[in-house]
Amino acid sequence: MVSPGLMKEFQRILGKEQVFLEETDRATYAYDAAVLEPVMPAIVLRPKSPEELGQVVRLCHENGLPLTMRGAGTNLSGGSIPGRGGAVVLTTALNNILEINEADLYAVVQPGVITAKLAAAVEAKGLFYPPDPGSMAVSTLGGNVAENAGGLRGLKYGVTRDYVMGLTFFAAAGETVKTGSRTVKCVSGYNLAALLVGSEGTLGVISEIILKLIPPPATSKAMMATFDTVGKASETVAAIIAHRIVPATLEFLDNFTIRTVEDYSHAGLPVDAAALLLIEVDGHPAVVAEEAEKVEAICRQQGATQIHIAKDATERDRIWSARRSALPALAKLKPTCVLEDATVPRSKIPAMIRALEEISRKFDLTIGTFGHAGDGNLHPTILTDKRNQEEWHRVEAAVEAIFEVALELGGTLSGEHGIGTAKSRFLEKEFGKGTLLYSKRIKAALDPNHILNPGKIIGE
Amino acid sequence: MVSPGLMKEFQRILGKEQVFLEETDRATYAYDAAVLEPVMPAIVLRPKSPEELGQVVRLCHENGLPLTMRGAGTNLSGGSIPGRGGAVVLTTALNNILEINEADLYAVVQPGVITAKLAAAVEAKGLFYPPDPGSMAVSTLGGNVAENAGGLRGLKYGVTRDYVMGLTFFAAAGETVKTGSRTVKCVSGYNLAALLVGSEGTLGVISEIILKLIPPPATSKAMMATFDTVGKASETVAAIIAHRIVPATLEFLDNFTIRTVEDYSHAGLPVDAAALLLIEVDGHPAVVAEEAEKVEAICRQQGATQIHIAKDATERDRIWSARRSALPALAKLKPTCVLEDATVPRSKIPAMIRALEEISRKFDLTIGTFGHAGDGNLHPTILTDKRNQEEWHRVEAAVEAIFEVALELGGTLSGEHGIGTAKSRFLEKEFGKGTLLYSKRIKAALDPNHILNPGKIIGE
Repeated sequence: MVSPGLMKEFQRILGKEQVFLEETDRATYAYDAAVLEPVMPAIVLRPKSPEELGQVVRLCHENGLPLTMRGAGTNLSGGSIPGRGGAVVLTTALNNILEINEADLYAVVQPGVITAKLAAAVEAKGLFYPPDPGSMAVSTLGGNVAENAGGLRGLKYGVTRDYVMGLTFFAAAGETVKTGSRTVKCVSGYNLAALLVGSEGTLGVISEIILKLIPPPATSKAMMATFDTVGKASETVAAIIAHRIVPATLEFLDNFTIRTVEDYSHAGLPVDAAALLLIEVDGHPAVVAEEAEKVEAICRQQGATQIHIAKDATERDRIWSARRSALPALAKLKPTCVLEDATVPRSKIPAMIRALEEISRKFDLTIGTFGHAGDGNLHPTILTDKRNQEEWHRVEAAVEAIFEVALELGGTLSGEHGIGTAKSRFLEKEFGKGTLLYSKRIKAALDPNHILNPGKIIGE
Repeated sequence: MVSPGLMKEFQRILGKEQVFLEETDRATYAYDAAVLEPVMPAIVLRPKSPEELGQVVRLCHENGLPLTMRGAGTNLSGGSIPGRGGAVVLTTALNNILEINEADLYAVVQPGVITAKLAAAVEAKGLFYPPDPGSMAVSTLGGNVAENAGGLRGLKYGVTRDYVMGLTFFAAAGETVKTGSRTVKCVSGYNLAALLVGSEGTLGVISEIILKLIPPPATSKAMMATFDTVGKASETVAAIIAHRIVPATLEFLDNFTIRTVEDYSHAGLPVDAAALLLIEVDGHPAVVAEEAEKVEAICRQQGATQIHIAKDATERDRIWSARRSALPALAKLKPTCVLEDATVPRSKIPAMIRALEEISRKFDLTIGTFGHAGDGNLHPTILTDKRNQEEWHRVEAAVEAIFEVALELGGTLSGEHGIGTAKSRFLEKEFGKGTLLYSKRIKAALDPNHILNPGKIIGE
C-alpha cells in the first residue's frame, strides 16, 4: 500500500528510525482494547514535532493513504484500529506539557502526554484536572480528546469535552487550524474544538490542546454501601440525586463483579452483597461532612444493610483501587470480555439493571455489571470466548438487545467509549437518517480523500 | 424577492395572519441591538409548530430564499439582521417549555422560550438554570444557544454551551437532525449540538433544546469593593483567582460607568471611586462565609478603600440591578453606543484596562468600561454619534485597536456577543487562514444554497 517513493519521503521527514515497516512492529498496532478484528497497518510512523506531524498528514492526503492516530490504544470501540490498513501515526514522541498557567487556570499540552502525568503535574501546582478515565495511567490526552473520554468523576466534574478550551489541529490536507482560546469565554467563530472532541480522529489531527484547570476540592470522603437486592441499590442512586446531592463519584457493582474483584484484589469487599454503591463526596470540609451524613441517611432509608465510611486515605484508596480493578478482574475470567457503555437517564438505572438481568437469562450469558451509576452509565460486561461461535452469536444478539433497551429508556448507545466501528451500524437507530446525512456531509467536506481514520463513527 | 407563488405557499402552511408583508411590519425586524446598518427583510414568518418551521426551512431552501431566525433580537453583533434581506422567521410562537425533569435534571424547551421564564420555572421546582445574559428578561433560549450567550455567572457556572445536552434542528434542506441526549454523558456520533451552539443560525434551524439543570446554591453573599485606582481593582481580580477562589460573579465598573449608573439609578454607588468590583460568592453557608471573608481580606490587601457587604436580599438586589443598568445607563448618554466584548486571559485584565485608557486618549473618545472581569471579558463601551462621520471613523479605528490589543494579550475577538457581521472580517487575524478555510468547508457542505443566515461569522 505504501510505495517505495512514499516510504522514502516518510523516512526523509521523520528519520529512518521513526518509520516502522517490519511486520512484528506493525502487528502491535493492529488492534486496540475493543473486541474487534485486528487490521494490520501498512506502516507505522512516529513524528517528533508538530511540524513533522503536519508533513505526515499532508503526505497521507496527497497519496490517499489512510491515517489513524494512536495514543496508548486503550480505546474500547475500535477507534485506534487502522481502518483500511493505512498508516498508524504514534503520538508517543509528542509528549510535552508546554505550559501550566496557574494565574489563568489552563494547561497547554501535546497529544501524547499521558493523562495521569498531566494530572500529577497539575496537582503539584495545587490545581486539578478532573477527567479520570479508567486507563488514565497509560491513556494519552490526545486520545482522551479524540474519544471524549469520561471517568469516575464525570458525575460532578464532567468529561474531557468540559475541559477543552482550545485546539490546534491539522485539517486533512495539512492546513493548520486553530480554534478556541486561552480565555474562559470564547465565541469567536465556529466551535471547531467542540466538533473535534469525540470525533475519533475522523475530522482532523490534533497537535496541541488547551485544557481548563480548576481549584481542587479541599477534602473528600469515600463510603461503601451494601445492599441485599440490586433494586434497592439502584433506587438509592436515583434517591441521592433527587435529594439534590451530586457526589463526585457514585459507582455501582453487582454481586458477580464484587466476587470477582474480591478474588482478584482481596480488598475486603462483602462477597454476599447483592450490590454495592461506592460513593465519594468532595469539597469544603463542612459540605463534605454534611453531604456524607445525608448520603448515609438516604442509603439507610433505602435499606442498605451496611455502610462503611473510609477512615483515612488508605481506606479510601482501597475502595477506589477495588473499583478500578473491576475490568481487569472480570477480563481474567474468560478469554473474551465485551465491555458495553450504553447509557440511560439516571432515573432509569433501576429499569436498565432489570433489563440486563433479563438479557443475561434470555441469552444464557455471564454478565457482570458495574459502572458510573450516577451518570446512568453502566458497564455491563459479557464474559465469553469468541472462538465459541454459537455463544458468540448469542453475545452479539445480547449486545444489540442492550442497545435497544437503552434507547427505549431514552438513553444513548455510548456514554463513554465512542462509536468507532463497534457501534457504527446502530447510529441511525439512535438519531435517524437526518443526523447520519448531516454527519456524512461534514466528513466528506473536511476529508475529501477519506483518509482520516476511515470507517469510524459513520462507517465507510 | 418573494414571488407571489412562494408567498401563497407560506400563507397556506402558516395561515395568512402569520405571514407579514407590510413594510411597517417588516421594518421592525431589519436590525438587532448591534450598531450596524439595518437590512429590510423581504418577508416575516411566524410558524406555530416545529412541523411548520420545518416546512418553512424546506421552502426557503428550494427557492433559494435566505432565512434568518429571530428570537428577541437582542443580539449585539448583527446575528439577527437578515443578511441579503430574505425571510425573518420568528420563534415567538414556538415558546413551550416541554418538560422539566426533576429526577434527571434537565429541561426540554422550544427555541422561543424566554430565558428568564425558564429560569423562574426551574427555580420553582428547586432547581437552577445558571446562564444569565444581560438581556435574559426578554432574550430567548433559541437565541442564547445560537449565540452561545454568556452572562454574569459565567465565571463559576459557565455559559450556555455548558448546559446544552442535546438539540433537534432542521438542516438547510429541511431534514430533521437529532443530536445529544437526555443523558449526562453521550459520545454517540459527532457532537453536532456543540457545533450548532454559537453558530449563529448558519448551520441549522433549532427546533428543540435539551438543557442541563443543576441543584441551586444554598446561599450567596454579594459585596462591593471600592478602589482609588483602576490598577488596584484590576490586580485584585487576578489576586482572587490566584487564591483559588472562583466567585459566582466578579464584575468591574470604571469611574465613568459608576457615575453614569448612579445618575441613572441612584443606587448609592461611590461616585468618586476610580473603580468598583462587585463580587458574589455562593454555595454552602460555610463556604460562602469563608470565601466572603477571604475575598474581603484580599481586597483590603490590594488596597480597597471601602468594602460593603450586602446585608440582605434587598441590598444584594440593589448591587446587581445597578450592575445590570450599566449598559442602558451608558446608552442614554449619546445617540450611538458601541459595546465591545474582546476578551483576554484573566491575568491580563490590568494590561487590557491600561490599553483601553490609552485607546480612549489616542482616539479622543469617551469609553466607559465595565464587565465580567473574572472571565477576562470586559465591555469597553464607546459613546458616540454615528452621524458625526469624523468621530465615527475614530470609533472604527478604536474598535480595531481594541481587537488588536486583545489578540496581542493572548485573548479573543469575542467572549460573549459572537462574530455576526460586526467582526467577520477580523476572524482570520485571530485564527489564520486554515481556520477560515475549514469553517467555510463546513458551511458550504451543510448549506449549499447559502440560505441560512448568510453573511454571518465567515462572511459572504
